[in-house]
Amino acid sequence: MELLEETLGSIGPLDSAAEHAAAARLDSLTKPPGSLGYLEQAIRRYAAIRGDGSARVGRAAIAVYVADHGVADEGVSAFPQAVTVEMLRNLAGGGAAISVLARRLGYDLRVIDVGVKTDTSSAAIGGVTYRRIGAGTANFVRGLAMNREQVRCALEVGIEVARELARGRATLIGIGEMGIANSTAATAILSAITEIAPSALAGRGTGLDEAGVRRKVAIVEQALELHRGSLYTGESILGAVGGFEIAAMAGTCLAGASLRVPVIVDGFIATAAAAAAERIRPGLFEYLFFSHRSAEGGHALALEHMGVRPILDLDMRLGEGTGAALAMNVLEAGLDLFHSMATFSSAGVSGRVR
Amino acid sequence: MELLEETLGSIGPLDSAAEHAAAARLDSLTKPPGSLGYLEQAIRRYAAIRGDGSARVGRAAIAVYVADHGVADEGVSAFPQAVTVEMLRNLAGGGAAISVLARRLGYDLRVIDVGVKTDTSSAAIGGVTYRRIGAGTANFVRGLAMNREQVRCALEVGIEVARELARGRATLIGIGEMGIANSTAATAILSAITEIAPSALAGRGTGLDEAGVRRKVAIVEQALELHRGSLYTGESILGAVGGFEIAAMAGTCLAGASLRVPVIVDGFIATAAAAAAERIRPGLFEYLFFSHRSAEGGHALALEHMGVRPILDLDMRLGEGTGAALAMNVLEAGLDLFHSMATFSSAGVSGRVR
Repeated sequence: MELLEETLGSIGPLDSAAEHAAAARLDSLTKPPGSLGYLEQAIRRYAAIRGDGSARVGRAAIAVYVADHGVADEGVSAFPQAVTVEMLRNLAGGGAAISVLARRLGYDLRVIDVGVKTDTSSAAIGGVTYRRIGAGTANFVRGLAMNREQVRCALEVGIEVARELARGRATLIGIGEMGIANSTAATAILSAITEIAPSALAGRGTGLDEAGVRRKVAIVEQALELHRGSLYTGESILGAVGGFEIAAMAGTCLAGASLRVPVIVDGFIATAAAAAAERIRPGLFEYLFFSHRSAEGGHALALEHMGVRPILDLDMRLGEGTGAALAMNVLEAGLDLFHSMATFSSAGVSGRVR
Repeated sequence: MELLEETLGSIGPLDSAAEHAAAARLDSLTKPPGSLGYLEQAIRRYAAIRGDGSARVGRAAIAVYVADHGVADEGVSAFPQAVTVEMLRNLAGGGAAISVLARRLGYDLRVIDVGVKTDTSSAAIGGVTYRRIGAGTANFVRGLAMNREQVRCALEVGIEVARELARGRATLIGIGEMGIANSTAATAILSAITEIAPSALAGRGTGLDEAGVRRKVAIVEQALELHRGSLYTGESILGAVGGFEIAAMAGTCLAGASLRVPVIVDGFIATAAAAAAERIRPGLFEYLFFSHRSAEGGHALALEHMGVRPILDLDMRLGEGTGAALAMNVLEAGLDLFHSMATFSSAGVSGRVR
């Protein structure tokens, strides 16, 4: 059986017994019942996804997928395409934002080249995992971004990375990305899935001015019109207007559910990947955490449409998994409280009177 | 000169040169300009408060002030008053939520008894700092909660604790509290200062039912009516309806500004302390960070009225400084990015094209 089908076939239900066990422990801890708010909800869901009422914690990892986009030719980014390969070096070299956060927080950081235009694999950059599907996607205002084989290949890279991280005892996986012009692809995907207008979703990306955003909206509208007939399944949407790194993140979302490892979705672009994954496997959102409400374009609108609650709201729009890393750190603190707080009986604290 | 007057007299202006230096460095880092969102704003303000464009980081500390409230006699809490001293032991013993977080995050935790009803100082609990002002405040529906001398004494305890933490190289101080019935006192203070009705501010505290909340509102209304003539200055409001731990937190807020150490305000009760401190020294909010939007009563409403933006929004309502600790951890991550990220020139990353 193919890896994708095997993954989809092995996604089990959430474990409600584990959730109830976690809820019972939460109520025994020395705090007013429910007073950890969202953290209690997150801990219960972590237990349900993991199938473990004790909500044990292993390692945490961040997978950052990097790729180029043919649509960059349309002038939809404030920065030149060369920045993708330059940032690939910076990510692996420790100078990028997510590199700093992963080091600080002790997270296993994987930087995966899934299709940067400049091929550096022959003189491999230390710290980069090469799983290149091509030298960037095709320009999706002229044709499909990816063919069917490329979509499958990218999804499977994402599945394989998740499997490898889970073998390394990861119990939380954050997903992030870097790729010049990928907020244009993400806008197209989110618009196709949520039916929110591109003009309400498109943002400044790395720093477009207003005219730049208008051009970006026009390009997305043109692409959605061109591909109108093939925007139904998750795979066909990814193929039409997606990106290698976006499809890989979708693969990691699907694999996380099959491995019972919660995946923490970064911002705008990772959300487009999660939305595509949910289209492939309806109900997938139950296995994911959305890390933050990004300041990029209509991210808040998209999250609301999807009915998901982000953990943080810091107006960040950097990508790379930076929002995921900060949110994972909050989740881990919640899990530490779950494991390490005293109970009313162990601490000899009185119960309620009314 | 008295400690309070000395503190108020030594609060200097924010350092705008330091703020500009920090902003310039933020713009040199390998990220889209402004893409760290609120974190960039927080880092600039940290630099301005510290008077240090390099935004250097020392230690972080949490001061948790614990005290009892005479108004607990009115049946305004879901838990018995004995819980205050039981939690004092739990806080110092490592089993309380903030104890777990401080240990996890490497924060210096100070647990200060400023007036728990049960006096444990003769067989001192290890890890508790005794700075008792009394055996709980008086019941403020019958008279003043504290006399003028007690208010000053509590403010000065908060100032002294902040000074001691700053001598220990703290550059971030979180404030938190524990004290059965103190959400009733905080409701009264916030209502007196913001003029928001008690019914819109009062919450369930540790877990009141609806009838309990109605009783709490009635008690606060009765107290505000009784003390109507003396709810003008920060000190008189604290004296009328405050608490020892609330006045001490206010003192720490004031001292932080004078020491150029940002103070991170926890939730509902700490916000009441900050509001009282701002009444004592208008403009003080510029030196504070508000850690989270609590789920307790009208905290969101009060923050909005005060025009301050909380860092986190996790529906927590536990107190003890737990929200402050989580928010400090986010601020520290932001400061690490500020210090450790590569610059465009050091990483050889291209600048913008448009």
